[in-house]
Amino acid sequence: MNAAQQKETWFGQAVRRLEDDALLRGKGRFVDDIHLPGMLHAAFLRSPYAHARLGAIDTAAAQALPGVVRVLTYQDLRPLLTCDRIPLAMPSGAIRFDVDPFVLARDEVCHVGEPIALVIAESRHVAEDALGLIGVTFDPLPAIVDPREGLKDGAPQARLDCPDNLVAQMSAAYGDVDGAFAGAAHVIAEDFHIHKGGGHSIEPRGLVARFDAGEDLLTVWDSTQMPHQAKRVLVRTLGLAEHQVRVVAPDVGGGFGPKFVFHPEELAVAAAAVLTGAPVKWIEDRFENFMSTVQERDQYWSVEAACDAEGRLMGIRGTLVHDHGAYTPYGVALPYNSATNLIGPYVLPSYRLDIALSLTNLIPSTPTRGAGRPQGTFVMERLLDRLAERLGLDRAEIRRRNLIQPAQMPYDSGLKTRDGGSMIYDSGDYPQCMARALAHAGWDGFEARRAKARAEGRVIGIGLSNYVEGSGRGPFESASVRIGPSGKVVVTTGAAAQGQGTVTMLAQVVADGLGVRPDAVSVIAGDTAASPLGLGAFASRQAVTAGNAAHQAAGEVRAKVLKVASQWLEADPEDLELSAGRVHVKGVPGRGRSLGEVASALAGLPGFALPPGTPPGLSAAVDYQPKGMTYCNGTHVCEVEVDPATCIVSVTRYVVVHDCGRLINPMMVDGQIIGGVVHGLGTALYELMAYGDDGQPLTCTYADYLLATADTSPRIEVHHMESPSPLNPLGVKGAGESGTIAALAVIASAVEDALKPFGVAVRDLPATPSRLFALMHPDLATPEARL
Amino acid sequence: MNAAQQKETWFGQAVRRLEDDALLRGKGRFVDDIHLPGMLHAAFLRSPYAHARLGAIDTAAAQALPGVVRVLTYQDLRPLLTCDRIPLAMPSGAIRFDVDPFVLARDEVCHVGEPIALVIAESRHVAEDALGLIGVTFDPLPAIVDPREGLKDGAPQARLDCPDNLVAQMSAAYGDVDGAFAGAAHVIAEDFHIHKGGGHSIEPRGLVARFDAGEDLLTVWDSTQMPHQAKRVLVRTLGLAEHQVRVVAPDVGGGFGPKFVFHPEELAVAAAAVLTGAPVKWIEDRFENFMSTVQERDQYWSVEAACDAEGRLMGIRGTLVHDHGAYTPYGVALPYNSATNLIGPYVLPSYRLDIALSLTNLIPSTPTRGAGRPQGTFVMERLLDRLAERLGLDRAEIRRRNLIQPAQMPYDSGLKTRDGGSMIYDSGDYPQCMARALAHAGWDGFEARRAKARAEGRVIGIGLSNYVEGSGRGPFESASVRIGPSGKVVVTTGAAAQGQGTVTMLAQVVADGLGVRPDAVSVIAGDTAASPLGLGAFASRQAVTAGNAAHQAAGEVRAKVLKVASQWLEADPEDLELSAGRVHVKGVPGRGRSLGEVASALAGLPGFALPPGTPPGLSAAVDYQPKGMTYCNGTHVCEVEVDPATCIVSVTRYVVVHDCGRLINPMMVDGQIIGGVVHGLGTALYELMAYGDDGQPLTCTYADYLLATADTSPRIEVHHMESPSPLNPLGVKGAGESGTIAALAVIASAVEDALKPFGVAVRDLPATPSRLFALMHPDLATPEARL
Repeated sequence: MNAAQQKETWFGQAVRRLEDDALLRGKGRFVDDIHLPGMLHAAFLRSPYAHARLGAIDTAAAQALPGVVRVLTYQDLRPLLTCDRIPLAMPSGAIRFDVDPFVLARDEVCHVGEPIALVIAESRHVAEDALGLIGVTFDPLPAIVDPREGLKDGAPQARLDCPDNLVAQMSAAYGDVDGAFAGAAHVIAEDFHIHKGGGHSIEPRGLVARFDAGEDLLTVWDSTQMPHQAKRVLVRTLGLAEHQVRVVAPDVGGGFGPKFVFHPEELAVAAAAVLTGAPVKWIEDRFENFMSTVQERDQYWSVEAACDAEGRLMGIRGTLVHDHGAYTPYGVALPYNSATNLIGPYVLPSYRLDIALSLTNLIPSTPTRGAGRPQGTFVMERLLDRLAERLGLDRAEIRRRNLIQPAQMPYDSGLKTRDGGSMIYDSGDYPQCMARALAHAGWDGFEARRAKARAEGRVIGIGLSNYVEGSGRGPFESASVRIGPSGKVVVTTGAAAQGQGTVTMLAQVVADGLGVRPDAVSVIAGDTAASPLGLGAFASRQAVTAGNAAHQAAGEVRAKVLKVASQWLEADPEDLELSAGRVHVKGVPGRGRSLGEVASALAGLPGFALPPGTPPGLSAAVDYQPKGMTYCNGTHVCEVEVDPATCIVSVTRYVVVHDCGRLINPMMVDGQIIGGVVHGLGTALYELMAYGDDGQPLTCTYADYLLATADTSPRIEVHHMESPSPLNPLGVKGAGESGTIAALAVIASAVEDALKPFGVAVRDLPATPSRLFALMHPDLATPEARL
Repeated sequence: MNAAQQKETWFGQAVRRLEDDALLRGKGRFVDDIHLPGMLHAAFLRSPYAHARLGAIDTAAAQALPGVVRVLTYQDLRPLLTCDRIPLAMPSGAIRFDVDPFVLARDEVCHVGEPIALVIAESRHVAEDALGLIGVTFDPLPAIVDPREGLKDGAPQARLDCPDNLVAQMSAAYGDVDGAFAGAAHVIAEDFHIHKGGGHSIEPRGLVARFDAGEDLLTVWDSTQMPHQAKRVLVRTLGLAEHQVRVVAPDVGGGFGPKFVFHPEELAVAAAAVLTGAPVKWIEDRFENFMSTVQERDQYWSVEAACDAEGRLMGIRGTLVHDHGAYTPYGVALPYNSATNLIGPYVLPSYRLDIALSLTNLIPSTPTRGAGRPQGTFVMERLLDRLAERLGLDRAEIRRRNLIQPAQMPYDSGLKTRDGGSMIYDSGDYPQCMARALAHAGWDGFEARRAKARAEGRVIGIGLSNYVEGSGRGPFESASVRIGPSGKVVVTTGAAAQGQGTVTMLAQVVADGLGVRPDAVSVIAGDTAASPLGLGAFASRQAVTAGNAAHQAAGEVRAKVLKVASQWLEADPEDLELSAGRVHVKGVPGRGRSLGEVASALAGLPGFALPPGTPPGLSAAVDYQPKGMTYCNGTHVCEVEVDPATCIVSVTRYVVVHDCGRLINPMMVDGQIIGGVVHGLGTALYELMAYGDDGQPLTCTYADYLLATADTSPRIEVHHMESPSPLNPLGVKGAGESGTIAALAVIASAVEDALKPFGVAVRDLPATPSRLFALMHPDLATPEARL
């Protein structure tokens, strides 16, 4: 910030991120920057098989290696634990049997990379050397890699300890969908597949755990999105009380979903710290990250869409087979999100999706940015493109005919939420949003550009996608605002920051309430000792939940300042204002007191009275409970050029019009949208976590697994609309994931548009050159083209 | 506790102390039990002069000693500090000039033992060796030892940087005292002196300080009664924000007042930890404790008492010269307490005491158990004994004629408090209390016992003393009650425990509210990270303030449990009860849920609703603000035998009737009373901190300075009355100091009663054999007899 940024209000300003000064100077404190005296280092022995019975484990040679402190297996850790599995984070009645992961493999290994043993040594090098000295007997078993295969009669079991491979079965449905199909003018049917991929944060997972026997306190610095959930699991599994466990998320180098999940390694390292009495560090390396950090997105859809003669949707029905991986740390939220997100910004009178969650011998599936929603949007938008083609309509026109109108807001989609309530969109102007995006992108002029390109021998296409994202999920988030005699403003919150600007966002909100600059506000996020209650980072929720909690808490502190000051200054509270860290008579900065002086009086002195009528402490704590989900929305339009010889896709233009209600910091929202789009571009064009038929991962380096990078990403134009949410005082909605949600659909739409002359229909992503080549030249395609 | 102790309510039961299991097994964690990796050790160079100008300090040789990390003086620490003095804890308009202590001596040293330099070394041994290598140039100056001398015209200055030695001047006064004396039937005048002595906790002071640069967090484990006050001083002096400083009082081996005060060593060690980046430990040794830990009680009173013909008090007037020592870390509360406590349980129609606080070259004066009150009670009770003698009344009878009657409750003493309110006794039956004590002690039969003793050649005497203690001082104390999914109940509080049973007291109160056993309640006291606000241990306040805070918080948690359970169990809250850690339908333990289940539902799961109408978290935090002081009272009666040859006093009988309102744990209150009496016996008979005319302390070992010990202490009979305080829901009053308050007066009364035949009048304490010998044989007495 500079002096010119001293504004009347900070809300809505592109304040520079308070986080960045330390990060850019290398002063960040990530887990690996934590060096505790006497700290030991952990390395995990992992399964080389996708499925095998686990025989004897011989640790003697490893244990004998100089520098090795302990070699730990399931049998060593079990006595410390109240239960041998990591409890299901989000229970659901649809789950048919217990498939929670073990702290370390017990009787069988069910995916490549599953942790089997843990070496604690004086250095990571020694620990890794010791891994090679552990002898394990495996009895290999058949592996399930395709979730559809596992559901077939007579399929091998992905896990011997489960009755079958059908983890859960459920439906999302409303309206008379069969009746709709019976009366439809047009019906289309399609199969879609969305592939497996990961979160790929710059910083992999990692933690340092320290058990202080004198204080009976386990402290865990964990690169997590959910320190409170991590604490809850540790309390339960280690049989401790809540005050005996502190989890801190220090600087976290990206979450993107996988760090929402508490992995077995986190429990194993914490238990090892309790067992050895020494601090233990484990930092996941990139190879481990590919093999053991949760992933998502593998889904197989078979769907039909029905519409009337004008292209108005009448119903969608079909089935979804969802790859659940080998364990269930999370529940059924992913396919649920896919199913609900399909509806998008459209009037869909009837709907039924039957969902099967299939156990496989792959890494467990849990949310990655978008959390099932990109798949739902992909399917709906692909169906609309197909219907447009069937009816001979412009792809924008068929959408225009189906969009929910602003006058219909708040709009009840017809779906029920997990709580039994209704899925109701709170606000938004979808037609205007799409119209603006089309205008910015020059949709109507595209055919002229295509003609020009063709004349030049270039193949180009354009695509569009609308989407809606339910954001700001509850049930609550905590924030407190506290000023001590130092006069410094401290915000504590159960929200957790992983680089998305949570600190700056909260500082802006609180600065407005207290008449201070944002850089005068210290924010402690992600520390369970600072905030007894909290949930953390998921579902693009923290601006809505923690933002409104901090806003309300700052307002309560402000009211207390005014009350005390009005006594001292003998002035009506309405004649006072807060600015520059002081409360003073309006327009008379000299006639006032500092916030520190007010706080000092309220901190209490032995035997001296507090200011009359005011409880002690200049603070307020608020657990903000949202009334309902806030639904942000947007339209993406992109143009691509495809080299018909190499099938390489270049994204030449990318326009986003996004509406997440009132913007707290437009620059940070831009960052979220752009980052989300790039994440989606990776999913659409590059990233593919490939497995062999035996369940061996084939792409465990960034040479094999391609990420979208700066040189392959286009300039992304972001335009904002602001339809305030009526559900919260700040009028804000979430924005963290929405960039990703439409990117898959819009790229598919554009690539298909470009390659339609070659007979290409995009039903699978990523649209890699080899896949596109196979679609263009089915006669020449090799089996590897499926990659 | 045993099974038989499973009672309907825990309040009022002699529950065994939860603290003791760990302490008795050597599992306590005192400061010296804290061993941090890389920890360094501190030792202080202290002034050998009571007063001297400080010249050059040569640290080169000390710095060169192997194992020495840093040698620090005022000049080294000053750059770290926002101010060079420790701010006055309790400001008062009566203080005439700034006499706060420096972090280390700056330009002069003003008492023997004042810290001058600090060696940080790899071991305490090396640090102490290095002290001998520091060269300091002193320019000795005259010392003020007797506070009366310092106030005389032309007296040397106790400190060169102060304008004179009169630190503060004030009066306690009400009524027409001069008119009362003019109309009085009898007037007596007396001079009294009460001597200097210390707190003498088993554990001396000590702290470990660690500054974690990565977290920007200073953690200080401090053997203190006031962790929040220590934090406040560290925040202010080190220029940190509140969230950057955590102060923890671990197990503390006795406070007794001196650990109420933040000493220069605490700041110096914390600053050294910041400077060196390593944890630093300093444990005060006993020799240092005698020379540098604050003390109190030196007061010189010249007072007159006036009464009517029947012995009814009409007025008291006089002057009090109070030794303030060399610095003022505390303010004027000590002589203020002395002045207000003088009134005691008596109707005193008029009063004026003119108080002068005199700077001396002695250790600063701050509260020791009783905090000025034993002196006030001593003076009043001595005056009543004199008036009884003058009027030829029994000492009990003159008191009976002057006691406030129960019907006069609440009783406005006439004095104003420091806040400008009135000093109002809340409840009590003083006549009955005295009557019971006299009956228990056989007051009326004493003359027969005396006659029998005389016949046996033994000299015995009896004494009595009444007293009132203002306890439960505000302005507030904090307590929170929290239950997490583990079902374990955790209480956090700003109250601080030093062995008085605070943990058990709070556990009993909370156990009643939540239907659990006290040993199922974990109490975290004395940790500023656990309780953002708090005051701590002083003024016998914690049962009143923290006890009622915890009671109210437990009640709020209970209400929340009932609300949630009534929904789940479809039962009216009134049909539910809490017992054995469960909430269930009354009489049907099986139809219910555990507290952990209720807490789990209220902790929140991502996207799942909380129980309707209940905010998240099963917890409540209360800052209890007392409506006014609670006044406990009591009567002590004791018998002594004095050997007329050796003048050794043996206490042969000691009876206490004590009334501190409702008793939470009678066994613990007994312990407080007995400990307080023994402390007072030391002050009355043994303890004397003697100084030479040059200000050199003469009694710095327990060979020279005698404490009351088990073999010299009588069996102390404690009887309770329970006059509930109407000012708080629990009806409790404080009890921690009251044993000490009357002990000085009752011993003086009994010793004088025994030695009256020898012409002895007790005006000074302690009544050591040499002093008594000098009083009995003025012609034989040597100058040392003043000791």
